[in-house]
Amino acid sequence: MDLLNRALGSSVLVSLKGGREFRGKLVGFDVHVNLVLEEAEELQNGEPARRFGTMMIRGDNVVYISPAE
Amino acid sequence: MDLLNRALGSSVLVSLKGGREFRGKLVGFDVHVNLVLEEAEELQNGEPARRFGTMMIRGDNVVYISPAE
Amino acid sequence: MDLLNRALGSSVLVSLKGGREFRGKLVGFDVHVNLVLEEAEELQNGEPARRFGTMMIRGDNVVYISPAE
Amino acid sequence: MDLLNRALGSSVLVSLKGGREFRGKLVGFDVHVNLVLEEAEELQNGEPARRFGTMMIRGDNVVYISPAE
Amino acid sequence: MDLLNRALGSSVLVSLKGGREFRGKLVGFDVHVNLVLEEAEELQNGEPARRFGTMMIRGDNVVYISPAE
Amino acid sequence: MDLLNRALGSSVLVSLKGGREFRGKLVGFDVHVNLVLEEAEELQNGEPARRFGTMMIRGDNVVYISPAE
Amino acid sequence: MDLLNRALGSSVLVSLKGGREFRGKLVGFDVHVNLVLEEAEELQNGEPARRFGTMMIRGDNVVYISPAE
Repeated sequence: MDLLNRALGSSVLVSLKGGREFRGKLVGFDVHVNLVLEEAEELQNGEPARRFGTMMIRGDNVVYISPAE
Repeated sequence: MDLLNRALGSSVLVSLKGGREFRGKLVGFDVHVNLVLEEAEELQNGEPARRFGTMMIRGDNVVYISPAE
Repeated sequence: MDLLNRALGSSVLVSLKGGREFRGKLVGFDVHVNLVLEEAEELQNGEPARRFGTMMIRGDNVVYISPAE
Repeated sequence: MDLLNRALGSSVLVSLKGGREFRGKLVGFDVHVNLVLEEAEELQNGEPARRFGTMMIRGDNVVYISPAE
Repeated sequence: MDLLNRALGSSVLVSLKGGREFRGKLVGFDVHVNLVLEEAEELQNGEPARRFGTMMIRGDNVVYISPAE
Repeated sequence: MDLLNRALGSSVLVSLKGGREFRGKLVGFDVHVNLVLEEAEELQNGEPARRFGTMMIRGDNVVYISPAE
Repeated sequence: MDLLNRALGSSVLVSLKGGREFRGKLVGFDVHVNLVLEEAEELQNGEPARRFGTMMIRGDNVVYISPAE
């Protein structure tokens, strides 16, 4: 389960319940899968739709996390 | 995960499950991501729609928190 | 997070999941954000729609609490 | 938070998630807000629609409890 | 809260989230309100619609339990 | 509550939240009601619709379990 | 319940709440049924629709896991 550790400092794709999708550099996380992203953006149909700088996503919203390709 | 600590005293954007969005000065939080905002306002389509003075948002409603730009 | 302590004895606005809204004098709460209100009323479109005397709201329904203006 | 203690033996109104409403004499409860009602009835539009004798309501369904007027 | 203890061996009505309703002899339960029923049947509009013999209902689905009349 | 122990090695019917239904030989379970089934199949309108070999069902999806008749 | 241990290194099918389905090599999991998949792909109507490389699925989304055939 050290996928998140290895992904620190890299870009990740985050899919949330309800279908929202975010991409950003993973700079922190905890056991609840709370995530801190930098240079984050919300994606719509895979395209950047809104920029956020830094954001914290509460872990209970997360469906999956995947290193961004 | 010290994003919330660094954001204390600054304006943050808070997105809730179901799509409601709030902005205000973060003056407190706890491990459940319960948040206390001052000079808070609810946003609709990014525009202020209702003012609240101080408010406490229960953490389990939160999708993400981001320093307001 | 002592917003609720400071609000004891004062009128608060309580917004619940699903959109119901209540207003009343906060006379008790606990760590789950269970709330006891006196002289409580349910609001519809901001107007009183139903009176309750005393009521206990289970905390997991709460979206936010704000001192009533 | 001793509202429930004071309400023991008296008639209470119980509103559940999803909108169902019950009224009955509160004869027991626990920390999860599990409730035991006697002479209970389900209300529809405020009118009795179904009688239950004794019933136990699981606390996680409860939105609020209020002494019946 | 000893309603469930007293109901052991007797017929109970069980209402679930989403509206499904079951009736059967209560032969076991635990602190999560997990229930074991014998001679169980699902009810539709109050009429038996399907028979189950023995069944275990996971407690988090339960809205209320009431001795069957 | 030893219904699950007695059902080990036998065919069970498992109903999930949202209405999906599975049948298979119960070969394992734990306190969360996580279930392992062998020779499992998904049922639609009571008829086998898809075969799975071995599968683990996460307990929080379960509505009820009943020995298959 | 050692189904997941035996499945390590093999291809599994993962069904999520809401109906999304993924397939990939199981390379890690924990007690919450958080899963790490490699060479993962999302399926639509049983056909690969999107490739992910490595991904972590948060366990509370999982309905079932089954060794892929």
